[in-house]
Order: sequence, then C-alpha cells, then structure tokens
Amino acid sequence: MAGYVSKKDYTDKLHEECGVFGIYAPNKDVAHLTYYGLYALQHRGQESAGIATADGKRVQLYKGMGLVPEVFSGESLDSITGGEIAIGHVRYSTTGSSHPVNAQPLVFRYTGGHLGLAHNGNLTNVTELRSQLLSTGSVFQSSTDSEVIVNLIARYGQSSLEQACMKCAIDIKGAYSLLIITEDKLIAMRDPHGLRPLCIGTLDKGYVVASESCALDTVGAKFMRDVNPGEIIILDRNGLHSLQALPVQNKAHCIFEYIYLARPDSIIDGFNVNRVRRKLGHQLAKEYPVDADLVIPVPDSGTTSARGYAEASGIPFEEGLVKNRYIGRTFIQPTQDMRELGVRLKLNPVREVLEGKRVVMVDDSLVRGTTSGKLVSMLRECGVKKVYMCLSSPPVVHSCYYGIDTSDEQELIAAQKPLEEVRSTIGADDLYYLSLEGLLSVFGDYQENFCTACFSGIYPVEVVKPNIKGKYSLE
Amino acid sequence: MAGYVSKKDYTDKLHEECGVFGIYAPNKDVAHLTYYGLYALQHRGQESAGIATADGKRVQLYKGMGLVPEVFSGESLDSITGGEIAIGHVRYSTTGSSHPVNAQPLVFRYTGGHLGLAHNGNLTNVTELRSQLLSTGSVFQSSTDSEVIVNLIARYGQSSLEQACMKCAIDIKGAYSLLIITEDKLIAMRDPHGLRPLCIGTLDKGYVVASESCALDTVGAKFMRDVNPGEIIILDRNGLHSLQALPVQNKAHCIFEYIYLARPDSIIDGFNVNRVRRKLGHQLAKEYPVDADLVIPVPDSGTTSARGYAEASGIPFEEGLVKNRYIGRTFIQPTQDMRELGVRLKLNPVREVLEGKRVVMVDDSLVRGTTSGKLVSMLRECGVKKVYMCLSSPPVVHSCYYGIDTSDEQELIAAQKPLEEVRSTIGADDLYYLSLEGLLSVFGDYQENFCTACFSGIYPVEVVKPNIKGKYSLE
Amino acid sequence: MAGYVSKKDYTDKLHEECGVFGIYAPNKDVAHLTYYGLYALQHRGQESAGIATADGKRVQLYKGMGLVPEVFSGESLDSITGGEIAIGHVRYSTTGSSHPVNAQPLVFRYTGGHLGLAHNGNLTNVTELRSQLLSTGSVFQSSTDSEVIVNLIARYGQSSLEQACMKCAIDIKGAYSLLIITEDKLIAMRDPHGLRPLCIGTLDKGYVVASESCALDTVGAKFMRDVNPGEIIILDRNGLHSLQALPVQNKAHCIFEYIYLARPDSIIDGFNVNRVRRKLGHQLAKEYPVDADLVIPVPDSGTTSARGYAEASGIPFEEGLVKNRYIGRTFIQPTQDMRELGVRLKLNPVREVLEGKRVVMVDDSLVRGTTSGKLVSMLRECGVKKVYMCLSSPPVVHSCYYGIDTSDEQELIAAQKPLEEVRSTIGADDLYYLSLEGLLSVFGDYQENFCTACFSGIYPVEVVKPNIKGKYSLE
Amino acid sequence: MAGYVSKKDYTDKLHEECGVFGIYAPNKDVAHLTYYGLYALQHRGQESAGIATADGKRVQLYKGMGLVPEVFSGESLDSITGGEIAIGHVRYSTTGSSHPVNAQPLVFRYTGGHLGLAHNGNLTNVTELRSQLLSTGSVFQSSTDSEVIVNLIARYGQSSLEQACMKCAIDIKGAYSLLIITEDKLIAMRDPHGLRPLCIGTLDKGYVVASESCALDTVGAKFMRDVNPGEIIILDRNGLHSLQALPVQNKAHCIFEYIYLARPDSIIDGFNVNRVRRKLGHQLAKEYPVDADLVIPVPDSGTTSARGYAEASGIPFEEGLVKNRYIGRTFIQPTQDMRELGVRLKLNPVREVLEGKRVVMVDDSLVRGTTSGKLVSMLRECGVKKVYMCLSSPPVVHSCYYGIDTSDEQELIAAQKPLEEVRSTIGADDLYYLSLEGLLSVFGDYQENFCTACFSGIYPVEVVKPNIKGKYSLE
Repeated sequence: MAGYVSKKDYTDKLHEECGVFGIYAPNKDVAHLTYYGLYALQHRGQESAGIATADGKRVQLYKGMGLVPEVFSGESLDSITGGEIAIGHVRYSTTGSSHPVNAQPLVFRYTGGHLGLAHNGNLTNVTELRSQLLSTGSVFQSSTDSEVIVNLIARYGQSSLEQACMKCAIDIKGAYSLLIITEDKLIAMRDPHGLRPLCIGTLDKGYVVASESCALDTVGAKFMRDVNPGEIIILDRNGLHSLQALPVQNKAHCIFEYIYLARPDSIIDGFNVNRVRRKLGHQLAKEYPVDADLVIPVPDSGTTSARGYAEASGIPFEEGLVKNRYIGRTFIQPTQDMRELGVRLKLNPVREVLEGKRVVMVDDSLVRGTTSGKLVSMLRECGVKKVYMCLSSPPVVHSCYYGIDTSDEQELIAAQKPLEEVRSTIGADDLYYLSLEGLLSVFGDYQENFCTACFSGIYPVEVVKPNIKGKYSLE
Repeated sequence: MAGYVSKKDYTDKLHEECGVFGIYAPNKDVAHLTYYGLYALQHRGQESAGIATADGKRVQLYKGMGLVPEVFSGESLDSITGGEIAIGHVRYSTTGSSHPVNAQPLVFRYTGGHLGLAHNGNLTNVTELRSQLLSTGSVFQSSTDSEVIVNLIARYGQSSLEQACMKCAIDIKGAYSLLIITEDKLIAMRDPHGLRPLCIGTLDKGYVVASESCALDTVGAKFMRDVNPGEIIILDRNGLHSLQALPVQNKAHCIFEYIYLARPDSIIDGFNVNRVRRKLGHQLAKEYPVDADLVIPVPDSGTTSARGYAEASGIPFEEGLVKNRYIGRTFIQPTQDMRELGVRLKLNPVREVLEGKRVVMVDDSLVRGTTSGKLVSMLRECGVKKVYMCLSSPPVVHSCYYGIDTSDEQELIAAQKPLEEVRSTIGADDLYYLSLEGLLSVFGDYQENFCTACFSGIYPVEVVKPNIKGKYSLE
Repeated sequence: MAGYVSKKDYTDKLHEECGVFGIYAPNKDVAHLTYYGLYALQHRGQESAGIATADGKRVQLYKGMGLVPEVFSGESLDSITGGEIAIGHVRYSTTGSSHPVNAQPLVFRYTGGHLGLAHNGNLTNVTELRSQLLSTGSVFQSSTDSEVIVNLIARYGQSSLEQACMKCAIDIKGAYSLLIITEDKLIAMRDPHGLRPLCIGTLDKGYVVASESCALDTVGAKFMRDVNPGEIIILDRNGLHSLQALPVQNKAHCIFEYIYLARPDSIIDGFNVNRVRRKLGHQLAKEYPVDADLVIPVPDSGTTSARGYAEASGIPFEEGLVKNRYIGRTFIQPTQDMRELGVRLKLNPVREVLEGKRVVMVDDSLVRGTTSGKLVSMLRECGVKKVYMCLSSPPVVHSCYYGIDTSDEQELIAAQKPLEEVRSTIGADDLYYLSLEGLLSVFGDYQENFCTACFSGIYPVEVVKPNIKGKYSLE
Repeated sequence: MAGYVSKKDYTDKLHEECGVFGIYAPNKDVAHLTYYGLYALQHRGQESAGIATADGKRVQLYKGMGLVPEVFSGESLDSITGGEIAIGHVRYSTTGSSHPVNAQPLVFRYTGGHLGLAHNGNLTNVTELRSQLLSTGSVFQSSTDSEVIVNLIARYGQSSLEQACMKCAIDIKGAYSLLIITEDKLIAMRDPHGLRPLCIGTLDKGYVVASESCALDTVGAKFMRDVNPGEIIILDRNGLHSLQALPVQNKAHCIFEYIYLARPDSIIDGFNVNRVRRKLGHQLAKEYPVDADLVIPVPDSGTTSARGYAEASGIPFEEGLVKNRYIGRTFIQPTQDMRELGVRLKLNPVREVLEGKRVVMVDDSLVRGTTSGKLVSMLRECGVKKVYMCLSSPPVVHSCYYGIDTSDEQELIAAQKPLEEVRSTIGADDLYYLSLEGLLSVFGDYQENFCTACFSGIYPVEVVKPNIKGKYSLE
C-alpha cells in the first residue's frame, strides 16, 4: 500500500540539526530580515521555523511546523513587526518524533524579564544538568537542551544577564551556537571548541549573527568575522561588546559542514565551502587515479567535488544524472513492486551520455548505502560499462553527539561492513573513500582545528554513549 | 468593509472560562471517553481543547485551537490511545488574545516524573506567587495560573505528590477545580469555597471527574457526589482516596452556573440546573406580574425561565423568536449599512405570532444590552404593541475574578446607567430584573452557599482590583 | 476502530436537498445579501454553497464544499462584489457521493451570453431529456438536473431567453424551483404543481426570491407572495415581469416542508410553519389521548408539536431530553463497545424530570427508527415507567422523487414492518402515528393542495421507479 | 507592505503551459504510475494536476490546484485506483487567473459514453469553433480549448470515436498534443506540424505516452518513438493502432523546448536536450569569443550552455552564483526598501570566486530583463571587473500562440529596445545573443523542422493577433 515518507526517510545523508539567525538593527524591519535570513538557512532545518522579536519593552514570538514560507505568511510576520531585535531558528529534529513543543525559539519569563533562545548544537551533559535542576524544583515542558539552558540562566538571574550567561557557560558542555534575545539585547555565544559555526556581520549601524555567512549575504549584511570559540557577544544600545567567557580550547570545527552540510557560498571559520569541495575533488583524483571515460556527479551533493576530480584528472565531466528539481519533502511512496521508481523520480540517468562508458561517479559521502546501490544499477541499465564510485570523505563510522543527525552506528554501512562488502552491496566495480589525511590536507596549516569524530572516533568533548539524544521524551 | 468576528464579540453574554474532565479507568478507552466528555462540556469553552493520557509509564498530550471535533480527529486520538488515565480541558480565553501556548492541559516534567494539569477557575494571588517563584529561579512560558501551580508543586516535589498538592493548596487563593495527571495517578482538587463546580462518578470499576454531571451521563458514568470544597481526591490502583486538604470555608458556589452557564441537564452541588431555571421563571412571575398576551423567550438562554414565567402567570407561551441553528462561531460581519442583519441572522421574529400582541420577553441576563435593543426593535417592526423585557437574574454590576468572563465594569450596562436609562436604551416598554432575594429564594435552605459577587459586590475571596486578569502576557 | 461520520449518516431524518436565493437590487451589496440569505437557508443543505453575481456585463461565480461560512470568507465574497444581481444555492447531496462538480450555481456560456442556474427539486424525466440531448451532440460534466436544463435552454437559444425558458418549461417534468442569472436578468421559475417552495419579496426598489420566507426576513426584505405554480418571473431594469408559462395543474405542495423540513418562522404557500406544527400537536392529542404524566419532545424536531400536544391534552410539558448545542457535522464515531454514546452525545435525558413518570415522547417522524430505539432505552434507564412514542406525521412508506432524500423504501422501517413490529423494535410501550386525514385537516379548505406521496404513494407527477436518482454518476 | 507573489511573477522566463501523460497497461497500477509520470513532468506546469482512470466500465477523475504531491495524497490516489487506463495533466495557466474549472483532465459524458481529455498546446481557431458550437446549442463551462474539442467530438458522436477524432482533427488548427480516455481506450493525437512534443514507449505489454521521454524513464517504460505529426494512436485491447489522420505538413517542432523548457534528460523528436544545450554553448563561444577569466552560469537554466561555452573557449568554468535550493513557489515579497533581496534570496554570488575577475555570464534567454539587471549589479558589488552577458538563444521578440507563455510583446525587452539599450538597462559591459543561424546549425540536417516564431516572427500556423489567449473568460 502507498504511504507518505518524509524527506528524512528518503534521503541517505547526514543532516544538520538547526540554523540560527539574529539581528540587532534599530530602524530596520528586523522580522522580515530574519525571515529572509532563515530562508537562506533553510537547508539546515526543514521541520520547524520561528522568529522572536523585541522592541525594548516586550518579546513577541511566532513559530510553527514546516518550511519557513509555510510557517510565515505576510500576516503572521506583520503580527511581530516593529521591533529592533530579532532571533530566528530553523530546526531539523534529530529525535524520531517532531513535536511543536520543541520548535524554537523558546521564550520564557524569568526574574529579569523575558528571555528567548535559539540554539544550534547538542549539549553533552544535559541529562546531568536537567537532573540537578529538577531536584531543586525546576519543571520542563520540552526535551530540548535550550530549556535546560534558560533554567540555568534563570537560576543565576540575580546577577546581570551577562554574568548569568558566563556562569551558564561554565556549566554546559558540548556544542552550542546560541542566540539569546531579551527586551533590549541580543546575545550570541559559541562553545569553547567552536564545534558549530557562527559568524557576525554588520548591516549599516546594526549587526547580524548567523550560522552561515550566506545568510549575511542574503540580507545585505557585510561579513565581519566568525564568533570566537568561547566568546560571548552582547549587542545592545551600547553597540557590540565581547567577552571571552571561557578560554579557547583546542578548536574543533565540524568538518562535515565543508563536506556536505553548509551552503557552498558560505565562508566558515576562514574557508570557503565551495573551494574546499573543489579541492576535495582534486585530492580525490590524486589519491585515486582511474582510467575512465567520464566523471559524473551525484547531484547536487557531489557536483563540486566531481568537477574538482575532472579538473585534476583531465577526464571529461558530464551531467550523467539529471535531478528532478521539484522533488519536495513528501510524495507517495512507490509500492513494493515499483520500489526502484523512488530513486528514478529524483535522479534520471541520461543514456546518450552514459552508454558504453566507463564512469567515475562522485558523491560526498555514503551513509546507509541504499541510494547508491540503486544508482549503480540504473547506470548499468543504461549500458555503463564500469562504475567507479568515489566519495569526497572518509567512511562515516561513528555517531555524532554534537548536533548532526548521523544514524545509529548500526545503520552506518561503513561501520558494519568491510570495504569490499560495501562495494559489492552497492554493486560498483570499485569504491574509493577519500583518506582522512587527504581530507585534512585541504586545510593546510589548520588541520588541527577540526572535529573528525564521525570518521576517527576522536571526540573533542567527552560523550556518554550510547546515545544521549532522545533519551527521554517529555511528550 | 466586511470582516470576521468571533462568537465572543458577537454574543452579549457572560462566558464560562473552562471545563475539565478526568477519568481513571483501566481497561477502558480513556482517550475516547475523554473526547466525548469534552464534547459534552463544549459549552464551557470553544477556543482550545486538549487531552493528556497516562498508561502507568508515561504521559502523552494532544491539544490544539478550536472546537473538540476540530482539534481531535480519529488519527490524533489514536495517537494517544492506550492509557488508563486521562484528563481533558476545553478553554474559553478570557484575555483578549488566544494563544496556543495557553491551551491546556499543560504537561511538565518535574522531579517526581511527569505532571499534567487541567484547571478551571482563576487564582486571585497568582501575581504574588509568580513573583516569588521568578525571584528564586523559575521560568514561565505562559500566562496561565496552571503554570504557577505546577511550579509550586515542583518546589514541594521532594514530598510525595499528595503532600505537595496539600502544600500547594495552602499557597493558592481563589477559584480552582483542578485535575492533575501523573504516570499512574489522577488527582482532583477543589478550592475551599467550591467556587467552580466539580463532581465525581463511577464507571464500572473506574472513576470519572468532571465540571458538570452532564459529562458523566454522556460517557455512561454514574453520578456519585460533588467534590467537596477543599477536598483532594486521589485515584490510582488503590482506588479512591480522599483528603480534606483545607477546612471547608463558607461555601460560595457560583450562582451564575444556574442562571446561564451550565447545561440544563446538569446537577451542580445538589441542584438540577433546568429545575432552578424553571423556578426562576416562577419567581419572576411572582415578582413582576404583567398584563400581557404572550410570554416569549430569547432562545435558547431564556427558554426555560420563560416557560416558568408562563406556567406561573398563566400567560400563553409562544416561540416568537426563531433561532438559526446553524449560527457558528464565525461569519462575515454585516457592513455598516446592514448592521441590524447581524441579530436577524441569529434570531428571526415570527410576525404571525407576534403582531398586535403585548409581549413579555424573557432572557436570563443582560450584559452590554446591545442585542436586547435590536430584538426589541425587531419585535416592534412586527407590530408588537408592548414589550416587557424581563430577566431571570439581578443586574450584573461587578466583575468576576473567579473565572467568568464578565466584561469590564465599564461595559456592564447596568453598572453604568440607572434602570430607567437602561430601559430607554433598549427601547422596551418596561424592564424588570429578578431581585437578588428572589434569586436566592429558589435555593431554599441553602441560600448562604452561593457567590453572588457579580450582583452584590460581596467577594468571598479577597481580590485586588482593578483587573488581575491579563495583567501581563508572556507573549 | 474509530472513524468519521457525517451528520447525514448519523441523523435519522428525511432531508431537504437544496435551498435557493436570488436578488435583483441595483445599489445594494447583492453578494453579501445573498450570503446572509443562504445562511438563513442553511438547514436546506450543508454540503456545498455557491453564489453567482452579475453586473450587467459579466457573471462571476464562487462556490465550494461545506457550510456557507466555511465556503465564504470576507475575501472570497469581496472577489465577487460589485454586481446588482445574484443567485445563491445550498445543496444537500442525495446521491451517495458528494462531488464538487455538482455544487451550484452552475454557470455556462451559451449562445446568448452567460447563464447561471440554482435549482431546488428533482426532474422526473431527466434521463429521457439527457438521452435526447446526448444523441444530438451535447456533453455533460455533472449528473445534476441543472446541466440538462441549461442545455435545453441553449438549444432554444435563438429565441429570447424568456421564450427559451418557456419552451424548456414545456419539456421538463417534475419538481423545480429554479433561479437563472444572466448578465442583466434574474429569472425565477416554479413547476406547475408547486412541489417545492419559492416566494418573492421586495427590498426597497429591488426584489428577493427565496425557497423560504425566513431568508427574506433575514435580509430585511418584505414578503410579497409565493411564486405561482407554472409561473416565470423576470426581474431586470424594467422591473418585475410575470408569465404564466404553463397552466397551473392541481397544486401539490410538499407537505413534509411543514412537518420537518422548513424553518418554523417561514410562511410557505400561505401557512406559517410553526403554527402548522403546533396544530399537528393538537390533532395528535385529539387522535391519541393518553393517560400520562409528562409530554416531552425529541428536540428540536418534535418541540413544537409536543407543545401542541401538551396544550391540547393538559399534560405538563417538560424538556426531558437536553440537546448538546455543539453537535456539529462530524465527530469521531464511538467504537463498537460504546455505541450507545452516539445518541447520548446529542441528547441527554434528565433523570430528575423523568424518573418514575409515564411519558409521551413526541417527534415529527420516524424514518429508520435507529435513534428512537436508543432514546427509548435511555429513558428507561432513567426510570421512566411508560414511554408512549408519538409522531406528528403518518408512516413514511414511499420514496420521494421530487427532491427529498428519503432513504430507499427498504430502509424505511414503516415500509418494511407492521406497526406492532416497529413498536417492539424501538421498545416503546405504545407507538402512534398521526393519521393522514388528521395531518391534512390542519390545512382546512386547502387539503387538496399538497403532495402526500411519501405517505400515500399517490404521486402527482408520474415517476419511473425504481430510483431514478443516482442512476448513473458521471464521476 | 509585504505580500505574496507566485513564482510566475517572480521568474523572468518563458513558461511551458502543460504536460500530459497517458498509460494503457492492464495489470499495472496505472493511477500510481501516472502520478510518478506527472511528477517527472512537473516542470511543465505547477498550477493544477489531475488524473483520470478507466477500468473498462467507467471513468474516474481526481484533480485539484497545486503541485502534484499537493493535489494527490495516498488517499486520493487510492480512490481512483484499479483501472487499466489513465491519463494525467499538469497545467501552468497562461491566462491571468487560474481557476479550478480550467484544471484538466476534463471528463464529460457524451453520446458514446465518457470522454476525458488532457491537452497541451493552443488552438488558433478556437474562437471561431466555439462560436459555431454556441450558435447550434452547445454550452461551455470553461475557457479551455479542450472543452471545444470535446464538443466537436460529441457532435461527430454518431460515428465511431476514431472517426469522430479524425473529423475533429480536420476542424482544429494550431498546436495540440492530446490524450483522450474513454471507458476502454486511450487515444493520442498530435497536430500536423508537431508543434508540441509527444512520445510513446512500452511498459511490459502496455504503452505509455508522454510530453517528454523523461516521464517514460521515470516509470520504467522503454522509449519507442515520437508520435508523428498528424498521427492518431489508439491503444486498447487490440493493442496499438495508428492512423495518419492528416498529411504531415512541414514540421515545426518548438525550438524553445531545447533552449529552456524541457528537462535535460529528455529526447525530443530525435535530439537529446542536454546535448543540444551543450552545443549551443559551443556555438556561442564560436560566435562570441571573449577575453575573460571565468565562465559562470545563471543556475540552473544557463548551466549546461555555460559549460559548453567553457569547453569550447578554454576559459575556466566556475559556479559563481549559488542557488538556494529551497526557493519555492511563494514567499513574502521584500518591501520596497529591500527590493534587491528578492534575487539575492534565490541566487548568491561567491565573492571568493568572482572578485577582480572578468566574467562571461551565460543564461538561456532574456525575457523582461529584470532579473539579469539585478544579477549584474550583484556581481559588481562582489568586485567583478567585467560582466559579459551572453545568451544561448536569439532575442525573443514575438509572442507565441502555440502554448508557450511568452509575455505580451510590450513586455519583451528585446522587442521594445535596441540591443545597446538592453545592454545598458541590465548594466552589462557587453551583451550577446546567439544568432538564429547558430541556433539552427546545432540541428544539422534538420534545421527546417522547427518553429522559430518567437525569434523570427514566421508562424507555421496562421494566427490572429493580437492575443487570442484570454480573450474572454467564462468566470
């Protein structure tokens, strides 16, 4: 029988959990600008969207389930128009269920007034912190880390908010790029490893903070710099004020942002994403020279690195797989007897281009392997003689605990099977993963600055396994 | 220009704020039964509806904006099926804005597990309690009294839940009929004056608690008794356990439940609502004998007392105004030049019945007087010779602070104008209000047991005026 | 398993198929007035609603599935604002399926311009007419009679529209109250037996035509007269012009309009509906005097005749069954093991009133008997000693072919079982139907003017059985 | 103030009007296969979608406004499951308004049974045909050409359906790729010039017909051939039967399908679309050699020809503009003071790639020029030194009357201004259009086979200007 599937079930990729956007800009329409900023960050989360604004006196909130343009109509945006500060959030739930109660920003009243939060990342000691808070009388309505953070801040609420944030930063461990809104302030915090991205720019006399620089571009803001690991930035009528709340620890920027997650036009912690991907293709060609007729990408994730491979190898680049641009989040799943239509609906091989050729097919990564196997067999049906599958990242063999939705290790094909078995499962003539050294080499002198836990198992912040995520759900 | 109006704007009546329903019945489909129970209580709140269920291990919640059948589909109900305990809530917001965040039940995690609340009534010291909680680190996401109550209970959370509820009862003042659900318990609490109704019944070996007995009837439960003022009832695997948490103070049951709010088939604190209304009609005929040709009700609110008036006076009863049974919550408001159509859409006078007659028109109460004036002029257009308007309640001259949506005193026509001026405003030939003594006389020996604050200004629980309601709104 | 039911499945009544409303009133907001007129006729059809307007140059249409306020928002109404003529339609589908394609008005382009139709009634020779049209090249998109009528008119389109309508009237047989809109005219036609109601009134210098006079009242129009059987009325810039298109045949007004279908405040073909119902109660008491303690109605359909019974018999009238005013069109059907909750959700017996009493329960009619049986058993559970069920109409034993949704004869309990068996099926102590003579006696000298086919089997217009309805469905 | 815009207003492109898909395949789930086929053709129409199925006895229809996955849920598809024949349609309305009544397929009852139509193209003599039909008694409910066609067929209905289709083909002029479904047949017709594409393939023992071959691939069908101009193909239990209804006239396939409209993986009338676009890039580089640092495409429409340009010129290809993959059909339009955000939301320039460079920017065509101007200024803000805009098609200077939504000639910038003025309007340093000869040269020996009316003004089928489209609207 036919049924619905969400994109989540359908695609075979790692997923970003969230994107955040904040703006302090008196005399600008901050609600609309945040809307456009979230639109630019839509790839970081498609399950819910929300905006909170402040006008010096009060904090207003509008949020809902769905894509940014589904949640916000002109009317809903007008209802929160008029402020000078705003924060926004898009969310991709990593827990199985997606509840409205988990949509962000969260807005609370605490002893100092109102407090809104938008959070990207995962705390690693949230269970412990929540227990302490519960035992001393706190209550929780959601299972989000953010509700723990706001309760911590409220407990330190007799201090100034800046001091409360600093104390909170001492308590919380793990990954966070955090935006806080009050009636008259915007505060940005980034964890001391810089695990999740966060950058700041200027817009006339105001400021914009966002997960990725593409959101700054979209609203016409000028990129200033990345928020430093461990830094707290306060934006208010006195301008920008920065505190180094925690000493910078060894940097551990998420390397997967460059491989797949971030938008190619973003610059993250000094590196342009598009350029990195191109170089990954060059490196791939160097590590894995093949005698082939064509290089084709799996669009869109493999396109840039495929082009890099073609450049470095001299093998012609062709668009051998055409993507249906209208594939949305839901469609009626093919019934059992037309199962392979699922992939065909999304990607169609071009026989004229492919027939009789030996093909290097480039993708960014391989998670569960289900899609790749179908692609290989589609290519063979078109008369492709050889399929050399290659990936611009090492095998993903460990779960992420810092805010990326890797599947369980049991579902990670590379964690479960030796290379040769993976290759035979997907049916390619050969299969090659970029080496971890090759991946890091692209970053030149900054190779030490990245978290590679999903490849290497080396976790920069201690985690309690298995699976601290979704350990209990409130509802 | 045409626009939408909610029923709230349209009708000229006092409004109940909420209705609650709870069930402890292992082996029953408690979610469905709660759905039917809320359907029976729909007249007590039409803005939001919600159900929380528990199955011994966890608490599940489903709620939304709208009528019970709009919020719950078979699917949403199935998603919370399977428990043995449930509470439900329908809400009619008294604050200007109606936010999803205020929909009930509220479900929280506290140190003892999960806690869900459904509350009918208004606390009078909520501002004070909230301040205390805020200053010691609590945060609030809504402006509901219920969130204050759950935080109080959580602060006492090291005690058993029963003890925590007892301590909470000592703190909170005002009106409350409160249902609490945990993983394995249903708790019912009623304020020590019994301001808002709450009764309990049995369903096979289980129990049902509800704002009105009509909800017990609807699910096939057998009425047992009213919950006593100041009583806490615990329902769990050990059966029913009752605590008299607070000494019963002078009883002060809301008298307006009998006049207008409750369903006629309910029995509240010993009195059948339909029977009370009939007697109010008798008393009205006794106090105000008129020489007239017909008694007609303003349907449906005046129907029963009009019949009582007719019985006692011997004047024939006629349905001189026909109600459109399809008037729903929203319709397009007539433009300025067809303003009077608004009432005509709802009530149509029957010329054949009315022409040339002297008419006693009976309604339950008169709040702002806008509708009554239009009715009188419609009757005159039909050739009615005399219109004697009479009301089965005294003038409403004071605001309620215990959970009824009276308008501000400035909007209460009887509080603003002397009787003769009210009469001339609505254009009746005469206007008569039932006396307070007459109203109370209907209750025989129990006249002392009622709150008559909206008529008399005698508030059984101290209130801080003006308007503790809506004093701040979180969002 | 729980599922949705429409009201149609749930109630145990005959149903009106449609209501029509038309207005010719330059300088009035005809779209809004039609909206209010349809609101007043909502009881005649709840499945779809539509309005077509004309402004001298073009015809605009807006229609949809659902209740009038669901179909029309301020925005949709504004989109067709500005004309001087409008027709509207509410529909209750009699075929099993309810398709948008059948919603009315239908608007077509024909050789003379645009033509919109709103139709109440059923043609009896539609199959034959459709065949003739098909064989000469017509095509049909719906299964409505109206599409046949418009094709007929188009075939006569070389004549003036008035002449085309007259020719069409010669062709069509059966029941119709028909409104036609063109760019600059409103035409009303009623079948030569006057089977379905249609009346006309004035609104300042304009005219209003409607199925029932209550719709005239609602928009502030003044009742003029009923449209005559066989009459065609043309309303345009030259005022009102009437043609007696066909000689009046023996009148045959639908008697069920008075028994149940019409609103009590309407006057139809000279008789006030409320007054007729009261007299039916008197007649019932005369034919069937019982020794009982109480008369109770099944609300709302039995209320007026129950009151008539009480008046004539002297037995006290009580509201022994309380109706839930919020019962809407859909709710989740009780599962098998709580089946009887279905009726209880709608009607709740008041034990205080009923216990120990011998009760006359009055309803207007009994179709399938399912609800009545449940009511009787609910009364018995409340301790009622005797239940004398009586009905203000004779047994419904024949199907209607003129626009009323009687069930198939196989489903009509009175057509399938002898009286005693019906009584024992519903479990009453006695069961009494009003006699046909008694029913007709209420109309005094006009007894010959009614169609009583559903009781008597005497069809004023020849019909082809079985079941010309739903014989084929287009989709 | 903020408002909504449809994609139609937003993009600056020509638009395909419709896509059609048909299947004759006993023992297959034809409804689901048609759903996937329409999904593959979604780029040809996003305003409405519909499917009609037949099972030998009856024709069922489901259609609605919106994208394919919005119109069809599992449930709606299941409701028409079970047949062996299906046709589907996606529509992009070319008239200003988009009415549900115009959604296709249309299904009618005619003298021979049921007839469903799905049509891509525009008839040029529809006004004349409609007049003839009206004057002899036909009525029309929509303004679609399809309703005219079905009436014509019905008039010839005494013949066999094949004969009726042949007679109809003699009457109708202009562009059509037409699918007809009856209870037991699927018929495909293509106009004698072959203006709009239509091809046929096999699926096991069944057949699939579609606007583009990519839809055949998607459902796993095997491409057989294009339907011949003037050919009628009948598919039924007797297999495939072909009639050359009209002599093939000079072929005139729409050349814009190759330039922009069709999906790159389709093969249309012998040419692979992707390959054609690549060659257009080669030709462009030959005609217009520039001294530049980079070639960048306007994604996605210019990507393939940009790559062709880079290949032929040797200038490096870069993705200098990054497209937001989540841009949907609606979003809140930027207010006046942030107007330029509209394009930035969709396309973001990558400064790292572009700064200081002389850039060849390649797009497929330029219609109104509004987007191009904003892109050029965005590039300049990124420090681009020279922008050489070049287009892989000649200037669009004439309207299409065969089913493509060109704007009015007044809106076509190239029809209104000389080249130099266009260049200065968009602000490029140079502007180059591919020559018509260059465009045609790509097709080798088949240069005579194409319609180039929008460039050359040479219309293969006579048209009546101005604007036969939208001449009257029914509603």
